Amino acid sequence: MIRVNENYKKLKASYLFAEISNRVSEFQQNNPDKELIKLGIGDVTKALPDSCIKAFHKAVDEMAADSSFMGYGPYEGYGFLREAIVRTDFESRGLEISENEIFVSDGAKCDSGNIQELFSNDIEVAVQDPVYPVYVDTNVMAGRTGRWENGRYEGLIYLDSTEKNNFFPELPDKKPDLIYLCFPNNPTGTAATKEQLQKWIDYARENRSLIIYDAAYESFIRDREIPHSIFEIEGAKEVAIEMRSLSKTAGFTGTRCAYTVIPDECTAYNPDGTPVSLKKMWLRRQSTKFNGVSYPVQRAAEAVYSPQGQKEIRILSDYYLKNAGIILTGLKKLGYTCTGGKNSPYIWVKAGIDSWDFFDRLLTESGIVCTPGSGFGKCGAGYIRISAFNSRENVIRAMDRFISYPV
Amino acid sequence: MIRVNENYKKLKASYLFAEISNRVSEFQQNNPDKELIKLGIGDVTKALPDSCIKAFHKAVDEMAADSSFMGYGPYEGYGFLREAIVRTDFESRGLEISENEIFVSDGAKCDSGNIQELFSNDIEVAVQDPVYPVYVDTNVMAGRTGRWENGRYEGLIYLDSTEKNNFFPELPDKKPDLIYLCFPNNPTGTAATKEQLQKWIDYARENRSLIIYDAAYESFIRDREIPHSIFEIEGAKEVAIEMRSLSKTAGFTGTRCAYTVIPDECTAYNPDGTPVSLKKMWLRRQSTKFNGVSYPVQRAAEAVYSPQGQKEIRILSDYYLKNAGIILTGLKKLGYTCTGGKNSPYIWVKAGIDSWDFFDRLLTESGIVCTPGSGFGKCGAGYIRISAFNSRENVIRAMDRFISYPV
Repeated sequence: MIRVNENYKKLKASYLFAEISNRVSEFQQNNPDKELIKLGIGDVTKALPDSCIKAFHKAVDEMAADSSFMGYGPYEGYGFLREAIVRTDFESRGLEISENEIFVSDGAKCDSGNIQELFSNDIEVAVQDPVYPVYVDTNVMAGRTGRWENGRYEGLIYLDSTEKNNFFPELPDKKPDLIYLCFPNNPTGTAATKEQLQKWIDYARENRSLIIYDAAYESFIRDREIPHSIFEIEGAKEVAIEMRSLSKTAGFTGTRCAYTVIPDECTAYNPDGTPVSLKKMWLRRQSTKFNGVSYPVQRAAEAVYSPQGQKEIRILSDYYLKNAGIILTGLKKLGYTCTGGKNSPYIWVKAGIDSWDFFDRLLTESGIVCTPGSGFGKCGAGYIRISAFNSRENVIRAMDRFISYPV
Repeated sequence: MIRVNENYKKLKASYLFAEISNRVSEFQQNNPDKELIKLGIGDVTKALPDSCIKAFHKAVDEMAADSSFMGYGPYEGYGFLREAIVRTDFESRGLEISENEIFVSDGAKCDSGNIQELFSNDIEVAVQDPVYPVYVDTNVMAGRTGRWENGRYEGLIYLDSTEKNNFFPELPDKKPDLIYLCFPNNPTGTAATKEQLQKWIDYARENRSLIIYDAAYESFIRDREIPHSIFEIEGAKEVAIEMRSLSKTAGFTGTRCAYTVIPDECTAYNPDGTPVSLKKMWLRRQSTKFNGVSYPVQRAAEAVYSPQGQKEIRILSDYYLKNAGIILTGLKKLGYTCTGGKNSPYIWVKAGIDSWDFFDRLLTESGIVCTPGSGFGKCGAGYIRISAFNSRENVIRAMDRFISYPV
């Protein structure tokens, strides 16, 4: 008898953004005339940069002739893209990362969901709370947690990120083997300083833990003191894997391209303490379960790293950051306490009431879609996340009709 | 201490095609002047169909303007593509499959590698031998096998597909819970009849097993008696999942698009025997670990299902099938015993000597890359796979310089 993976039964309801999408669909069906402004899922709205479009077209044309047609590519991505990434994202910041440490994929979501496959099933996993649900759910599916109980999974280590600690987690008492960190943070919009991150890297080195560092929002960093990469932190190469995405950086949410950095030095262990190269394991995983990113998409991604592409994506992130500023100012005027919105496209807002109740009221009264903070974890209860990914016009209109605090 | 998934250590050497690629690279470095003809990995060589190119460009243009820009798409693929698939691949053959049973992805390799995540870790798994390595390796990684011993993994059920049974496996004595079948088969090129498949479907229904049916090569079927879909077999919807790919069908190996069909009726079970919908579980899996296929790629794929697209891909598969015929005739003339090459782009050739020895001799003496049969399993020992995916000119030249049998 074909038996199911029973860990799926532990998953609470559906994936957060699927639940939001259901509620929004229902509302729209019942209110077909009401026009909604979506500041929820964090999907970009601006067109792809010109450089990308040109490179995209050119690559599609290559696919139109036998002589220039491209079949299967390297599992880890084309050299032209990996070289461009190294040059632009690392060399330019004085960081020594080689193209052989770069693995191109179709999404940081996929990578951050799949990376746990490399590890033993009985490791201790720590996540920030509030947290991007993918880190948690993929570990639940793999059987690394117990049941969902009182808003948390048994067996997971939660790193509270609250007003009290300025939304940056303290080192836990119980020592985790695998630690997911995300900065600039989704959902709180908090950016981490070098000093803050150094503490975690030192901790990981001391305990032979591994840090999965999700830097999907690094292109929104403007503060010169804030590191863009975990590899700016001393000793990080041995204990950290970094994930980057073109989704928010260059408007690739629907085009799909991202990458993961696994340094040569990055190590996990056999039970007897002998070291194992994680880079080799990841290549084995990817070459077995993945067949590379679409060639035209990789060419479009390469264009992001050209001098012109870099100018264009700077304009894009400036645009969304200005939106974030408008939202931050608007919400403060309306009486809300907020964090984020600087070095980040997300604004984390104290709702004063239950997150989903606020979500429903903001949807029905203002016609605005947000993301309920409780969907990101227990410490997200009473908060909502507002995303700056929309047109200037919509952001201004949203602020005009946003409900005041207290609701 | 971060401990690794020790199941990776059971994996023998590297992934088959990675190993081939290494040997070929080494040969080319040592013989820079020698021109190689690659009839190995099964990668297509002809340009994308005109309809796809047009649709691809149009979609890229949509991404160039805010008003038509597409961000995140549905996890299961856009409705326009799923409708086109249903109409063309199923309705046209009188099969009732709804678009809600279609899940678009970036590759049948990914889907066939990921699908095992839905099942309990202690199920019994059966694979054909020879077999596409992905089914085996992904189950090894998940811990469903013992060690690699005498050319096989302990704990896996191998379904011998040899000359003796005309390369179609008999029902096994030990009852598997999960059964991987691939027809037209990779690597043997064997196509299965309705009667043959009916036996397996009946068997699966009797034992509440599940069949993963890989139909990646269905577009090469010309014989009217050969089913294109497992759902042409009575009772299949309850016990089968089908995987299809545009890679070979429409030249999408470097463009990346495929789909999986999970019927509403398709069921797995809790340990107490209560049924669980696999469709719902797969959607949960995909929405957590995947973010959809690139929008322009989905538009290019949609064009495959237009009347013009269908004409164009027929010309493509006709072209490769004619290559297969030339190879089949050529090899027989040279003294080889072969199977496949009809209803399939693969020719399965009795080498007379060890597969890797033949691979090396064919590489060094004829400058031709094939795939060693032993890489597909114990029953593949003494065979090689020749792929028809190359230009007509190269196929003819390859036959001119191919070593004779016996080697």
